[in-house]
Amino acid sequence: MMNNEAGSFTLPGEAGYEELTLKMAKKWGADAIRDSDGTQLSELITKAGYEIYSTICIIRDHNKWAKQNMDKLQQTFLVTNPVVAVSEVLTIHLMEGYFDEQFKINDSDEAIKYIEVYDRTTEKKLMTNNWVYEKEAGNIVIEAAIPFHSYTVSFLAYRIWEEISMYNHVTNSWIKEHQMPIDPRWNKVQRYLIKWMEDWCKQHPDTTVVRFTSMFYNFVWIWGQSERNRNIFSDWASYDFTVSPLALAEFQKQYGYPLYAEDFINQGKFHVTHMPANKKQLDYIEFTNRFVVDFGKQLIDIVHKYGKKAYVFYDDSWIGVEPYSKLFPEFGFDGLIKCVFSGFEARLCAGVDVETHELRLHPYLFPVGLGGAPTFTEGGNPTLDAKRYWNRIRRALLRKAVDRIGLGGYLHLVENYPDFCDYIEQVGNEFRLIKAIHKKGGAYILPCRVAVVHSWGRLRSWSLSGHFHENYIHDLIHINEALSGLPVDVGFLSFEDIKLGALEDFDVVINAGRAATAWSGGDAWKDEKLISILHKWVHKGGTFLGVGSPSAVEGYINYFRMAHILGIDEDTGARVCHGRLKYEIDKMLRQELVPEGADIIGSKQLYLADGRARVIAENNGVPVAVVNEFGKGKGIYLGGFTYNNANTRMLLNLLLYGTGLSLAQKYIPSNCDTECAYYPQSKEIVVINNSDKQIDTHIMTATGLKNFTLEAYEMQIGCE
Amino acid sequence: MMNNEAGSFTLPGEAGYEELTLKMAKKWGADAIRDSDGTQLSELITKAGYEIYSTICIIRDHNKWAKQNMDKLQQTFLVTNPVVAVSEVLTIHLMEGYFDEQFKINDSDEAIKYIEVYDRTTEKKLMTNNWVYEKEAGNIVIEAAIPFHSYTVSFLAYRIWEEISMYNHVTNSWIKEHQMPIDPRWNKVQRYLIKWMEDWCKQHPDTTVVRFTSMFYNFVWIWGQSERNRNIFSDWASYDFTVSPLALAEFQKQYGYPLYAEDFINQGKFHVTHMPANKKQLDYIEFTNRFVVDFGKQLIDIVHKYGKKAYVFYDDSWIGVEPYSKLFPEFGFDGLIKCVFSGFEARLCAGVDVETHELRLHPYLFPVGLGGAPTFTEGGNPTLDAKRYWNRIRRALLRKAVDRIGLGGYLHLVENYPDFCDYIEQVGNEFRLIKAIHKKGGAYILPCRVAVVHSWGRLRSWSLSGHFHENYIHDLIHINEALSGLPVDVGFLSFEDIKLGALEDFDVVINAGRAATAWSGGDAWKDEKLISILHKWVHKGGTFLGVGSPSAVEGYINYFRMAHILGIDEDTGARVCHGRLKYEIDKMLRQELVPEGADIIGSKQLYLADGRARVIAENNGVPVAVVNEFGKGKGIYLGGFTYNNANTRMLLNLLLYGTGLSLAQKYIPSNCDTECAYYPQSKEIVVINNSDKQIDTHIMTATGLKNFTLEAYEMQIGCE
Repeated sequence: MMNNEAGSFTLPGEAGYEELTLKMAKKWGADAIRDSDGTQLSELITKAGYEIYSTICIIRDHNKWAKQNMDKLQQTFLVTNPVVAVSEVLTIHLMEGYFDEQFKINDSDEAIKYIEVYDRTTEKKLMTNNWVYEKEAGNIVIEAAIPFHSYTVSFLAYRIWEEISMYNHVTNSWIKEHQMPIDPRWNKVQRYLIKWMEDWCKQHPDTTVVRFTSMFYNFVWIWGQSERNRNIFSDWASYDFTVSPLALAEFQKQYGYPLYAEDFINQGKFHVTHMPANKKQLDYIEFTNRFVVDFGKQLIDIVHKYGKKAYVFYDDSWIGVEPYSKLFPEFGFDGLIKCVFSGFEARLCAGVDVETHELRLHPYLFPVGLGGAPTFTEGGNPTLDAKRYWNRIRRALLRKAVDRIGLGGYLHLVENYPDFCDYIEQVGNEFRLIKAIHKKGGAYILPCRVAVVHSWGRLRSWSLSGHFHENYIHDLIHINEALSGLPVDVGFLSFEDIKLGALEDFDVVINAGRAATAWSGGDAWKDEKLISILHKWVHKGGTFLGVGSPSAVEGYINYFRMAHILGIDEDTGARVCHGRLKYEIDKMLRQELVPEGADIIGSKQLYLADGRARVIAENNGVPVAVVNEFGKGKGIYLGGFTYNNANTRMLLNLLLYGTGLSLAQKYIPSNCDTECAYYPQSKEIVVINNSDKQIDTHIMTATGLKNFTLEAYEMQIGCE
Repeated sequence: MMNNEAGSFTLPGEAGYEELTLKMAKKWGADAIRDSDGTQLSELITKAGYEIYSTICIIRDHNKWAKQNMDKLQQTFLVTNPVVAVSEVLTIHLMEGYFDEQFKINDSDEAIKYIEVYDRTTEKKLMTNNWVYEKEAGNIVIEAAIPFHSYTVSFLAYRIWEEISMYNHVTNSWIKEHQMPIDPRWNKVQRYLIKWMEDWCKQHPDTTVVRFTSMFYNFVWIWGQSERNRNIFSDWASYDFTVSPLALAEFQKQYGYPLYAEDFINQGKFHVTHMPANKKQLDYIEFTNRFVVDFGKQLIDIVHKYGKKAYVFYDDSWIGVEPYSKLFPEFGFDGLIKCVFSGFEARLCAGVDVETHELRLHPYLFPVGLGGAPTFTEGGNPTLDAKRYWNRIRRALLRKAVDRIGLGGYLHLVENYPDFCDYIEQVGNEFRLIKAIHKKGGAYILPCRVAVVHSWGRLRSWSLSGHFHENYIHDLIHINEALSGLPVDVGFLSFEDIKLGALEDFDVVINAGRAATAWSGGDAWKDEKLISILHKWVHKGGTFLGVGSPSAVEGYINYFRMAHILGIDEDTGARVCHGRLKYEIDKMLRQELVPEGADIIGSKQLYLADGRARVIAENNGVPVAVVNEFGKGKGIYLGGFTYNNANTRMLLNLLLYGTGLSLAQKYIPSNCDTECAYYPQSKEIVVINNSDKQIDTHIMTATGLKNFTLEAYEMQIGCE
């Protein structure tokens, strides 16, 4: 049934297209067929000898039960827009602006207790006797408002439409019943779900792998009523959608202190993953993570009891499922499936401590893709999309193996795209080749150990809080993407890790981000211990590579606390009357480190901290890239970083330079649009073209210089 | 001797060029001739019937006396660059990097007391027993430094070269003896200067006007030893150059608390005028202002005793001389001479409460001008320079009269520039025409009263802290320049003024600046009273016009505290996961308010605060100009403001719109490159072309539409 080279490929089967399913399974070398949420594969498929993945999103598709238990729906805190009082009586309508198909005020007694009315002009909470809740109208009436102060109301709302189905519904104009998410925080829900899981396993004897999407709680995705304001707030890693009076009561029991609406609302800013977390937030994350793992494990145990495997699809309802959390192994998952647009997501998947690592490739087999762009519709070019995504992912796979790939969506959409079908066949073959090479022994890594340091550390390895397109304004995601395919060791550290001595294992530390963010670090840089340790480590030979506003915090002599190491600093306004040191570009060093085509963006307010740094790039007369010696080590600064082929090579050059290695290393191709991985055990060299042009490139190997000519996006395998 | 139209013009006479002096005096219609610092006019000139201005800079040109009283030189606090300790012993050389021809450590006992050594990693001051001062070497040795912490030393230094003469010396390669500035804070210096002033008056019987340049203390101008780092710090309005152990002792006596080095050094940032002042700084300014006025008055009284007038040249040594300080009238000056590049400086001069207001025009008669650009040397075009400067100033003069104009520098330089001589003759005539029209009655002003609000308020009316080129990165100086020639009432308020009710007299309030600066206001915006008053005032009909980051301060629900009024806010990082409201440009409103050629710059992180604001401009998909209704009033926001003709017209449009006036006003020319002033008493209309092109423009008057065709930079006078 399968050809010799087949396997390691998961195909989305489609009911009603049994013949096509089996035909494509053969063409693409599939060894597993999956259904989609809520669909059912026919026996023609399930009995054809394939592994069968069945997809379940455990907290939805229970509408019948949910309707009888509307107080068991998942919830969230919402806050009204600030309203300015123009007299002493102010009426605020709670749901104003929010999507009424997504939210419904929770006006039960235990939820009303959590309502908070704030004077936002003074940031003072009003006493409860200063306002009245009008249940019928859904209004708060403040009876002694201070005229011309502004007020908000925070309150708990049920979420009456599960967000992923809501999204698919709205985007693809579905007209099915709205799925409601139930909250397993309640014992009653847990009992219901345990029974449901048992029943489900019994009813699906052909299923070999249960694919959980992911566990219980979706990332935050708050919608507005108006088309002008559909996306009010979405953070792919925040915990707001896990909250309920029950959760808050249990939290207080476990942690000994209460949480209030404002601990989530945070002046309407919420606590986004891109900002450093406070203690309460970290406690709440830990509390929820513990719960998700504990109850998740009960469900996974059932799956195992029925002789099936349990894989987690790590996306969407992934809150509390972080694979780099220390609790994750307790789930007992047999595999992790990651949907991937980018290399960093492949590395995220590859590094998880589970048996099977699988990537769900893009494009998704849906009529439209990201941002509503056509894919399998008029104007779409799914083959080109696939090439671009694969090109991003392949370079990461050359460094670190994963076990499987697959697709998702509606298979019938590929029928009219034979070119796409051929390309996916090629992708499958390339993937299996790479996997086979890895089996013989891992890829060669340069003696260059790189630590990315930020507030979250290992918990948020590789990803910031979602996909590339959700994070593209942050320098760090560009850096992670570049790192994902470079022949260097990469680790992720928190500032606490550094204080505990973690730097000893690394040659270069990267700190990259906008000031005050979780990625730059914010107040973490007020800690003199952190500053001293880093200075000492650099003095002994380490390299601190800062991007954007690294180590930035107000209140000190330098805005960049590592300014003396970096040789550069940023003026936030107080130094506008200070002169700027004159400099000349160090052309020799620039030529060595900065490949043609590389670009470095920079803020206007950068200035040289003293006369020592060597400037390798400037922008509008302002230095934006410098290198600086300190003791035996170095500081390196880049004003910004955008992922592209030339910048990725520049990053590799800077890492080698920072590590004190020659840039003339073996197995680094001459042309930046190409990359290469070398496998010492098998002596194989895999060369890839990351561009859409034909490229000639040569590579120094242990047995001399080798030349390669690669077509656009081509991969070639040579031998040393 | 003078033609009919002559007068109101001060000519710089030059010894050795008596014939030229008298010739140019006649050509330009001079009625006064001035000398330059330290030169002496011959009797051929002084007896020719002109007013004679003599220039003195009271604190220099006393080198003989100064050498015998080296402890009476002026001083300043300096701070070393931070140095990172790599062991427990750290030696810091105090003068490292500073220009040794400008500074000399004050190592007297009373100055050593003021030395402060700071650990800048922890921001803690070291106890004095933790360091030793090595007098011979000029070093501080810290004996128990914490390795990898950074340290600075703050200390008092004498200034051994008066900065303006130093600048002229270095720029023009003079080789004269270095002038040393003496400090009138000492009684001994006061006694010396009083006698000197008496003697001087006796020795200059022909002098009718003593022109003080300005009083005692120069703006801060700290030079570096290295050519790479010549300009370490310069702030045209800061008080650092007034300090000494004696001043500090007297301050403590008067104010009851001591000041330390760090109160001036401020982590090496000093206290620049562009940042909000703290209480100590304001006390010290008041203290010094009082002293400068008190002792200044004694000298001016002497001048008056000898029947001469005392004018102040407001520039250079102008610290403590602010003409909008409430103490200024106590000086008893008869006139104020302002050196002007720009319109706002003309308005600054015109608004001062003295008898005679005089402008010293540019270009200065020097071989090189601003930033070393050629003027009266090969490659220079002094006529074009003069046209451009005059063009900036003339529009301000049309609104508010001054009494006199003049030039400065070396007259002989004009000999080879007959074109320049002709143009200055024309400028003199234009000036006298404008002055004569003003005499018949002031210019028509629209019923639009505009308040610029910032931390300094009236004290720093029109100017921020110096000339346009020192402040060009600040939006507000562009706005002040635009306002200087607009037919509206302009006032300058502090935040305190607003709290005391000053808004009642205004229609539009402008708040413009980068966050945290004195111009935006920084922490002033934490005051709920200010917020409430402004909200109430707008609700009743006022307009709040914000530019850049108006009312911005961290810690509240909105970054712009006036976001609800403005309809727009700025994300500093915490709202990166919030959606952005969609909008469409309001094309009708845009067409009405934004003239062709106007440009609005904006920050990338702006977002609409709610759905009400109307967007009139965007930049890279981000709204950068909006108008918003609130009650009977409005908020208007601009992402930035750059002075040019089209933007100036846009500002006028916005002010009229904000005041609720029709934009179709009389006496506003159809073409933005032209402006017009109308004088109701004489019914004269003055039309000016602010561009270097010929322009046709028409103007609606009370008697119908009038057309004008103006050559580049031309001024025409019509009658209604």
